[in-house]
Amino acid sequence: MVALAGGVGAAKLVWGLAREGLGSRLSVVVNTGDDLEAFGLRICPDLDTITYTLAGLSNRAWGWGIEGDTFRCLKALGRLGADTWFGLGDQDLATHLRRTSLLSQGWGLAAVTAHLCEALGVEVSVLPMAEGYTPTLVKTDAGRLHLQEYLVREKCAPRVQGFEYTGVSRQRAGPGVEEAIRDARIVVICPSNPFISVGPILAVPGIRRAVAASRGLVAAVSPIVGGRALKGPAAKMLGELGHPVSAEGVARIYRGLLDVFVLDERDAGSAPAIERLGMRVVVRNTVMDTSGAKRALARALLRLV
Amino acid sequence: MVALAGGVGAAKLVWGLAREGLGSRLSVVVNTGDDLEAFGLRICPDLDTITYTLAGLSNRAWGWGIEGDTFRCLKALGRLGADTWFGLGDQDLATHLRRTSLLSQGWGLAAVTAHLCEALGVEVSVLPMAEGYTPTLVKTDAGRLHLQEYLVREKCAPRVQGFEYTGVSRQRAGPGVEEAIRDARIVVICPSNPFISVGPILAVPGIRRAVAASRGLVAAVSPIVGGRALKGPAAKMLGELGHPVSAEGVARIYRGLLDVFVLDERDAGSAPAIERLGMRVVVRNTVMDTSGAKRALARALLRLV
Repeated sequence: MVALAGGVGAAKLVWGLAREGLGSRLSVVVNTGDDLEAFGLRICPDLDTITYTLAGLSNRAWGWGIEGDTFRCLKALGRLGADTWFGLGDQDLATHLRRTSLLSQGWGLAAVTAHLCEALGVEVSVLPMAEGYTPTLVKTDAGRLHLQEYLVREKCAPRVQGFEYTGVSRQRAGPGVEEAIRDARIVVICPSNPFISVGPILAVPGIRRAVAASRGLVAAVSPIVGGRALKGPAAKMLGELGHPVSAEGVARIYRGLLDVFVLDERDAGSAPAIERLGMRVVVRNTVMDTSGAKRALARALLRLV
Repeated sequence: MVALAGGVGAAKLVWGLAREGLGSRLSVVVNTGDDLEAFGLRICPDLDTITYTLAGLSNRAWGWGIEGDTFRCLKALGRLGADTWFGLGDQDLATHLRRTSLLSQGWGLAAVTAHLCEALGVEVSVLPMAEGYTPTLVKTDAGRLHLQEYLVREKCAPRVQGFEYTGVSRQRAGPGVEEAIRDARIVVICPSNPFISVGPILAVPGIRRAVAASRGLVAAVSPIVGGRALKGPAAKMLGELGHPVSAEGVARIYRGLLDVFVLDERDAGSAPAIERLGMRVVVRNTVMDTSGAKRALARALLRLV
C-alpha cells in the first residue's frame, strides 16, 4: 500500500495502517512543500509528524513535535535576537540538526529520512515526495507568504488567493516513490489538505502520472467532515478559493484520479453527487479520535483490496 | 586594557577586571583555535566561556556552558546516531545555532560575537582573534587530533608531541584587534594555556608584532602555580614537550614579549630566575577561587599602570 500524506490527519491513518500489520509493506509518500529553512536548519514538519507518530513519540495535544518536549533552546534563541515564531522543541531540534548536518555532508533527503526512521525504529517506509527544497508559498491578501508563515506566524488569518509550489516542477519524484506507487495494490490519499499537503505531492513531475497509471486502486479519504476540516485551514481555503466547502468539494479536486472516495457517515447524503463524479463512494466513520477509530478506518481501506 | 584570553582561567580574570569598572575600556582578544565544527554548527568554546562569564550565565562547576542547562537535544541526537562526546546544552545550543545561522548569512565572526554580547548585556569588547576557522591540531602519540578531540573525547590522555595552528598563518587579526593592542596602556596575557590558548592568538599574523610594538605595558599572569595547572593540561603539555613544569617554564615561552610576569605567592622563590629572563616580576595570589580573589588580582594588574 502507498499513502500520500500531509501531517496530523495522515499520521493518524498511517499509524492505524501500521498497527493493522502493514509495517514495511506500507510506503508513505510525504509532502515536503511545508519544509522550512529557519535557524540555519532544514525543518520538515510533515515528515517529522509522520515519523514521530509512527515512532510513538508525537505530541498529540499540539499536533506537532515530541511528547514532553521542552523549549529551552528556543527561549535562549529569542534572548539572542532570533525570530522565534516557529516552535522548536529541544528534542525535536535534534532531528533538524541531524538532518541538516547529513544533508550538508551530501546525503539526500530520502537517505536522511530512512536513517532517522531506522534510528527511531520505524518500519514503515517513509519517503519524501522529492529530494529538493520546494517551499509552498501562499498567495494572500497580505502578500505572498511561506506556508509556515501563513500557518504558524499569521495563524491562517490572511485570505488565500492561490498557491505556488516553488521549484516543484523542476524536481523528480524522490527515490522509490514512483516504484512504490506503480507496485501498490492500493494508493490512499490521506485525509490531508488538498492544497497544501496533497497538492504539492501531485505537482511533483511523475507522481500524478504514476498514480493515474497505477494498476492498484486509488482511494482518497475526505479531510472535510460535516463541512469542516478536523484540523487546519482546509475548509477556510476551499471557501476562499470558491470551492464547495464539503467532501464533495474535495472529491471534485481529485476527479479523474480516484476509484474510491471515503466519506464520513455524517456526509452520507453527498454520496450520490460524488458518485456522479465517476468514483465509488464508501461511507465510514473517518473521525480518527481514538486508536480504535484509526484502526477501524485502516481496516476499511485494507478491505477495499 | 587588552587581555589575551583562552577559556576558564582567563574568564575569571576578565570578570574581575569588568567588576573593577573597566567595562567598555576592556577589550578581550579571544582564542578561536579551539573552535569546533560539529552537528553542522560552529562552536567557539573559549569565546562562549568569556561571554557567558561576563554575562553572569556561566556554569562554574563544569567550567563551560550555561548554569542550569539541560541536555535534552544532545540526548536526542545520540538516539539519532550522532556522535555526542562533545557536550552541548540546550541553551548553549542557541548560541551555536544563532552564530552558525548569522555566519551563513555572510556575517563575520567579530560581528556575530558583538551581536551576541549585546544581546546578553556584555559591555566588555569581546574580539575573536581572527575571522576564520583555524582549528588547533594536537600532534600526539595517538595521531593528530582536533584540540577538542584531545581535550574532551580523549580527556588529554595521549602524549603531546606538538601543535599545528591550522590555517592561522593565512589569517589576519580580527577587526579591532590590532588597534586595541596598539592603543592599550596595558596588554595582559591571561593565565591561560600557552600552547593551546595563547599560542594560537600570538600566531595570528600581526598580533605578536602588535603586542611587541605596543607602547603600553605587556604583562602575563602565570597559569602554573606550584608546578601545577589550576585547570586543564598546561602542566602535562609543558612536561611532555620538555619545558620546565613551572611558572618559569611559562615565562621562558613568553620571553622577549613581556615587561611584567605575575607570579603566584607560592612560586615567589622563582622570581630571581624569571627576572633574569628580562622581565619584572610581581608576586600576588593568582588563584582566583573567590570573587574577591578575582577582583584583587584585577586591581593588582590595574595598579601596574
